[in-house]
Amino acid sequence: MRKLVWAVSAALAVMSGTALGAKVTVLTAAKIHTLETAHPTAQAMAFDDTGRILALGDAATLGKRYPKATRLDVGNATVIPGLIDAHAHVSGLGMTMLSADLVGADDKQDVLQRLQAFAKQLPAGAWLIGRGWDQNDWPEKRFPTAADLDAAFPDRPVWLERIDGHAGWANTAAMRAVKRDLSGDWQPDGGRIERAGGKATGIFVDGAMSLVDQARPPLDEATAERALSLGMQSAVEHGLTGVHDAGVSLAELKRYQRLADRGAMPLRITAMADGNNEALESLCANGLYAHPSGRLKMRTLKLYADGALGSRGAAMLQEYSDDHGNLGLMVTSPEQIAVAVEKAKRCGVQVATHAIGDRGNHVVLEAYAKALGNDATTTDHRWRIEHAQVLSKQDLPRLAQLHVIASMQPTHATSDMPWAQDRVGAERIIGAYAWRQLRDSGARLALGSDFPVESVDPRFGLYAAATRADAQGLPAGGWFPQEKLTAFEALRGFTLDAAYAGFAENEVGSLEVGKRADFVVLTEDPLAIAPSGLRNLSVQATYVDGEAVYRAK
Amino acid sequence: MRKLVWAVSAALAVMSGTALGAKVTVLTAAKIHTLETAHPTAQAMAFDDTGRILALGDAATLGKRYPKATRLDVGNATVIPGLIDAHAHVSGLGMTMLSADLVGADDKQDVLQRLQAFAKQLPAGAWLIGRGWDQNDWPEKRFPTAADLDAAFPDRPVWLERIDGHAGWANTAAMRAVKRDLSGDWQPDGGRIERAGGKATGIFVDGAMSLVDQARPPLDEATAERALSLGMQSAVEHGLTGVHDAGVSLAELKRYQRLADRGAMPLRITAMADGNNEALESLCANGLYAHPSGRLKMRTLKLYADGALGSRGAAMLQEYSDDHGNLGLMVTSPEQIAVAVEKAKRCGVQVATHAIGDRGNHVVLEAYAKALGNDATTTDHRWRIEHAQVLSKQDLPRLAQLHVIASMQPTHATSDMPWAQDRVGAERIIGAYAWRQLRDSGARLALGSDFPVESVDPRFGLYAAATRADAQGLPAGGWFPQEKLTAFEALRGFTLDAAYAGFAENEVGSLEVGKRADFVVLTEDPLAIAPSGLRNLSVQATYVDGEAVYRAK
Repeated sequence: MRKLVWAVSAALAVMSGTALGAKVTVLTAAKIHTLETAHPTAQAMAFDDTGRILALGDAATLGKRYPKATRLDVGNATVIPGLIDAHAHVSGLGMTMLSADLVGADDKQDVLQRLQAFAKQLPAGAWLIGRGWDQNDWPEKRFPTAADLDAAFPDRPVWLERIDGHAGWANTAAMRAVKRDLSGDWQPDGGRIERAGGKATGIFVDGAMSLVDQARPPLDEATAERALSLGMQSAVEHGLTGVHDAGVSLAELKRYQRLADRGAMPLRITAMADGNNEALESLCANGLYAHPSGRLKMRTLKLYADGALGSRGAAMLQEYSDDHGNLGLMVTSPEQIAVAVEKAKRCGVQVATHAIGDRGNHVVLEAYAKALGNDATTTDHRWRIEHAQVLSKQDLPRLAQLHVIASMQPTHATSDMPWAQDRVGAERIIGAYAWRQLRDSGARLALGSDFPVESVDPRFGLYAAATRADAQGLPAGGWFPQEKLTAFEALRGFTLDAAYAGFAENEVGSLEVGKRADFVVLTEDPLAIAPSGLRNLSVQATYVDGEAVYRAK
Repeated sequence: MRKLVWAVSAALAVMSGTALGAKVTVLTAAKIHTLETAHPTAQAMAFDDTGRILALGDAATLGKRYPKATRLDVGNATVIPGLIDAHAHVSGLGMTMLSADLVGADDKQDVLQRLQAFAKQLPAGAWLIGRGWDQNDWPEKRFPTAADLDAAFPDRPVWLERIDGHAGWANTAAMRAVKRDLSGDWQPDGGRIERAGGKATGIFVDGAMSLVDQARPPLDEATAERALSLGMQSAVEHGLTGVHDAGVSLAELKRYQRLADRGAMPLRITAMADGNNEALESLCANGLYAHPSGRLKMRTLKLYADGALGSRGAAMLQEYSDDHGNLGLMVTSPEQIAVAVEKAKRCGVQVATHAIGDRGNHVVLEAYAKALGNDATTTDHRWRIEHAQVLSKQDLPRLAQLHVIASMQPTHATSDMPWAQDRVGAERIIGAYAWRQLRDSGARLALGSDFPVESVDPRFGLYAAATRADAQGLPAGGWFPQEKLTAFEALRGFTLDAAYAGFAENEVGSLEVGKRADFVVLTEDPLAIAPSGLRNLSVQATYVDGEAVYRAK
């Protein structure tokens, strides 16, 4: 009899569209910024135990409507939709947590000290992996060499990635592990071995990095999975409820799937297939992928057009202003890009291509325009350019014209501002990091961090977007202040517009009835404080599907 | 012989495009914000003695290029393009300086004290004119009556305009001067006489105001001209170098012309013809008007669609949320608007129509769409909606679609925010003062003040645009902060985009070679300070055509 009653109740629940039998939670806060245009703020939100939002409104009304609900009162805190990083590298972040951190090292001596401290925990003979060095921060501002490492590490291979991931620094032991003779005058496709007197110096730019990468002993599965878990955990601790992982191999997708099967995904991963390889092939053969948990999907092809600006690997239409004759590098040839893009188009796969230099961006826009044809404006393709960092005057309006999303990273602007104009000069800098011009042209901005290239912390991205200043607030008023976003626009870029870029705006990105209860509890109201305070927001808790995946101690 | 040399030199000057014989001034400043996209900042600017900009760049280069130039070094100050108020009433501002100022009066007692003080300087029997009262600022928040004035002013006519210009308050002596019997139950077209027991209370809304206005003795020409001069002088003292005067009769245009002939125009007036009347007729008969001095032009028709929100005169699609059954008022009927707009179209005249309520705006958009047809997107019509204050969800994107300019006043939002949501409710307020939504839809924003309805001071407009807060910074973070503009966008709205709305962006609005040297010298850099500081910028000097029209004492 009890069973029958329950069954009737469940049937009614299905009929009414709400699980009456389900446990409902009513959250109350000083303010909830919903990011929904028609109802921008609320004081209360109800969601069921599947994490689906049932209602938003004032506390009294929702309290009356759900009298038996669990109460979750966050007091004077502000609630915002869960933050989504539209471009990042989860495994990379995890691996940095398993490798030596060289970010912010003052000079080579500082690098060596950090490496020696880190090496103490490593087994004998294991490779020492580090990441985050930037010679622009050092007194001499020149690329380092293997010799700088060899005295301290004569036998242990050392392999250190530059902060932007576009150059690597090896010691002699690491170069010995490379099978091919690195001396001579040959260069690998899309890359450059730095040499002095025909001998490799230890610096490997872009495509040349794979020479050393391939010499490393393979990563064991347990470590790889641990890296993903560490990366995701760090993300939710910073208020992220979603990450677009910009380059996931088929093996890594399977790794994510195993975590999702075990319920071990604390946030939503929108994985992009790593180039024209197995993962794309799988999407073409088996269709776009989504895990039933709603925590993992893949429907995007990630390509690299060119390198990065810091290492002068970004492909420019004209030579670098501070390196005459250097036009940078296409990492993937225009022909290969065209082939991959056409394949994605045939398979109904979204394309997201890394393009930093104005030539890189031009090649991508040409390839997109050709592959999409009339579909550019008549279909919901949502193709993206990742970084879209330096755009020629002619190409800047083409993103909007082709309905291409600009997936940009505010902290790249503030990290690069000390030297970016040196690289490209006074004229081209006007089309660089041009958020406002892109918005004005009608393009949509999805914001992200590119972690671990930049910090995983989205507060830094919000701050950079609204101030264009460094942590000290310099330059006063911001770098090219005409390109600033308002705090609200920055927040939208990290929520609703990032969700849109991942075809997820009907599920997440704003707090609306029927969407998922992905949200962040902040001590401060990010829209009520001065933009200079955005760096110092305090994340009290992060919720995904209505469940706390992080609570501050 | 001297004459011949001069003639040759002048000929060379003409050939080289620069008056070689002309006196050149080189201005140097800590920073010049040019508002030109390609060269956003400079440290020096050269202009000739006709006020034409010759060059922008760094101080050393310009000093070398113009070795004999007059130097104008403003030290640590910042230079910005001259500010342009895209919607204001110059004569109205002047007349407020010739009438009692009731802005900010705390209550009726305060009003009476101000009137009595002002009356001391008036000849016996002269009308006492005042402006700026707002019953929303008073404890009782109800319209006042004639009786409130009669004890203090039994014989002298008193006529006091409400702060928004959409209601007037008369004493009994002023009502006696009206020929028509004001009692009964009749109402004038597009207006309302407030009555109690069939007797006029002293309050005249919108179209009813003309009953009292017409009873006033005519303004003498000297006073009218003095009002224009006072208004323009006040404008330049606040950093304005241009004003779009929103409603100028043919008589007033002639008054301006006389001032321009005498070289007595300290700034540029873009006059709009006052409705479908003589001035429009003159434009149709004689063509668009421009004074050879460059200081005066008329090529625009100004219409009024509806009233204002404060007095519930704005025409709404649904009843006022705080006045059931009241739909507001169309000041001009849809049919009359259509006739006037068609006429303007035939004559090549730009149209700018006041529309506050969502019905007012809808009627205007319909009229524009019909009159323009395909020309909406294929011609450079630049038709405008003045205020565009409350837009329905359906109509908001139509401004961009029809290439209609939104001519908006940031201080209206911050003046109206204490009561605007009471008038229109939680749903319609989302489409009100919706700067960011309009920008996102692709519409261009020209900014102004509507002085004397709001202060002539454009600093308040810049501040309101970037903060959506009152002078005390409340509410914290601003009212509907998602609609904020950045300081740069606010500045562009008061310079380049206002110039565009007046077909003047090739002459003014930014500091570029070939444009006019209209600029403002500020102690602070408005793009380097926090938005909260925009209210307190210090105007050191205002220049028009390269000549100081105002210098701070």
